[in-house]
Amino acid sequence: MRALVFDGEKLEIAEVPFPERGKGDALVRVIAAGICTTDIEITKGYFGFTGIIGHEFVGRVEDAEEGHLIGKRVVGEINIGCGKCDCCLSGDPRHCPGRKVLGIKDHPGAMADYLTLPARNLHLVPDEVSDEEAVFAEPLAAALEIMEEVDLRPSSRVALLGDGKLGQLIAQVVALSGAELTVFGRNERKLALLRDLGITVTSDTPSGEYDIVIEATGSPKGLPLACSLAKPRGKVVVKSTFSSDKAMLDVTDLVVRELTVIGSRCGPLPPALRLLKRGLVDVRRLITAVLPFERAIEAFSLAKERDSLKVILRMDEGS
Amino acid sequence: MRALVFDGEKLEIAEVPFPERGKGDALVRVIAAGICTTDIEITKGYFGFTGIIGHEFVGRVEDAEEGHLIGKRVVGEINIGCGKCDCCLSGDPRHCPGRKVLGIKDHPGAMADYLTLPARNLHLVPDEVSDEEAVFAEPLAAALEIMEEVDLRPSSRVALLGDGKLGQLIAQVVALSGAELTVFGRNERKLALLRDLGITVTSDTPSGEYDIVIEATGSPKGLPLACSLAKPRGKVVVKSTFSSDKAMLDVTDLVVRELTVIGSRCGPLPPALRLLKRGLVDVRRLITAVLPFERAIEAFSLAKERDSLKVILRMDEGS
Repeated sequence: MRALVFDGEKLEIAEVPFPERGKGDALVRVIAAGICTTDIEITKGYFGFTGIIGHEFVGRVEDAEEGHLIGKRVVGEINIGCGKCDCCLSGDPRHCPGRKVLGIKDHPGAMADYLTLPARNLHLVPDEVSDEEAVFAEPLAAALEIMEEVDLRPSSRVALLGDGKLGQLIAQVVALSGAELTVFGRNERKLALLRDLGITVTSDTPSGEYDIVIEATGSPKGLPLACSLAKPRGKVVVKSTFSSDKAMLDVTDLVVRELTVIGSRCGPLPPALRLLKRGLVDVRRLITAVLPFERAIEAFSLAKERDSLKVILRMDEGS
Repeated sequence: MRALVFDGEKLEIAEVPFPERGKGDALVRVIAAGICTTDIEITKGYFGFTGIIGHEFVGRVEDAEEGHLIGKRVVGEINIGCGKCDCCLSGDPRHCPGRKVLGIKDHPGAMADYLTLPARNLHLVPDEVSDEEAVFAEPLAAALEIMEEVDLRPSSRVALLGDGKLGQLIAQVVALSGAELTVFGRNERKLALLRDLGITVTSDTPSGEYDIVIEATGSPKGLPLACSLAKPRGKVVVKSTFSSDKAMLDVTDLVVRELTVIGSRCGPLPPALRLLKRGLVDVRRLITAVLPFERAIEAFSLAKERDSLKVILRMDEGS
């Protein structure tokens, strides 16, 4: 089958063996896959992953022990727990220390004709959600994870740093709460997408005092900036990961103002699908391009451009 | 009156004017004052404070508009809010941006014959609590602040890094919860004080996985170490402040394992007094020396020694 493979140095379309379906796994024919910032970071050596990349996908189940899944359109939870550790047994395979992660760690990813995932990882996509919209279920879940970690209230004052792919989704879900949100960004085109939705945006130097500050800049400079915007006892939610790994934290300020800094990663897919089904998050405006799989290398170049948001690969076109 | 004054370079006993009692203030004759690590940091230039230092005290009210306070033995909340800002109006003067802090910021401290504080900052000391014990009310409140910020459960696995003055108090209050606590320290004498209380201590290299990690080492290296000991979704409470201000944080680890890092400073005095009254925290074992005020300079030297814990100055002896 066809697959987009990162060999540790370069990305290329390759012919690879058909995946074997293990016990409990479902075999999924991939319909479409989205390019995420993490994918771009992987191609820079982040996480040291090699193999088939991609983790944002929608597909159709071709084979599974659970007969009712066959033929169904699905998205998938990307973390594959060991099923035996304390995390897994407590229902949190996302933090299983021995977990595999689709296209990120020890498990072939979604930019291929087929993938396998444990059937329990799959969620049915409602008919109201298009293929391209369904690709956003995974990053939208990551945006929703913020609300799993901090008490966002209708009266909260929230600052979001970052207007990129993830920032756009975060802005839309935070705004659904009724909270007083200000998005600080640097890209006028991207800010305009949010302004069009009635969300307060600015390219001014970030300032003010906020109950919650969400850091989604993708830069090590974002964390100290986010902390400076938090009010005493405020919460700073960190969504950025970056190749450099580390950032400076002003510990005295953290202690004296009793700030809380919270790391946030993957989130729950079912609420993401409910919001997409109801059309409460407009992801179509975030699609920069939909390209056939043959143009995957070009798609990655496009995804890295400053004005780009989501670039989607269709596996079922042009082949 | 006599006072211990830091002039920005050196500490000395000086004769200073008697303090004026402002509207709403109480005039307190200081009975005893404790030397805190923050005091030692101030003498190194931390916070840029100059003037009368000291913020851990017990005293007797000599004058106040509230007649019932006069003659009473009190301890005091050290943060003096402006009374007008959002923090103050919401009942949180500890985070008032314009606050003064006894002996730390813009307000003369407790190492003097007299101090003034707003009468609303004072708390009566129960008869069961001795003068020396009452001096611990403020740092004990700072230890209790941890439980104001994280959900400590009887089943929590907790690691405490640090066996110093504050670490000793934290260990005792965490152990009261029934939680499974391990204290990591480097000073065998200090660890022995906790071991004698039946608390698990070790001078081994910190290891393990904990729900809650409390960082009280006073070193910038403590934060990355504390994070490495937290389990996925674990909480790291930072109690240390240090002159260098900044520490490196592994942001990728923070995000991937969804850690929460919480700064923690001053806490509530009433529960601290309740625990002291009931004898549930044994602070007497933490007293290295009680010296008359005339020996204050010597007391600071003693407090800086490796094996020292609390050194207390008595204002009412030898004068």
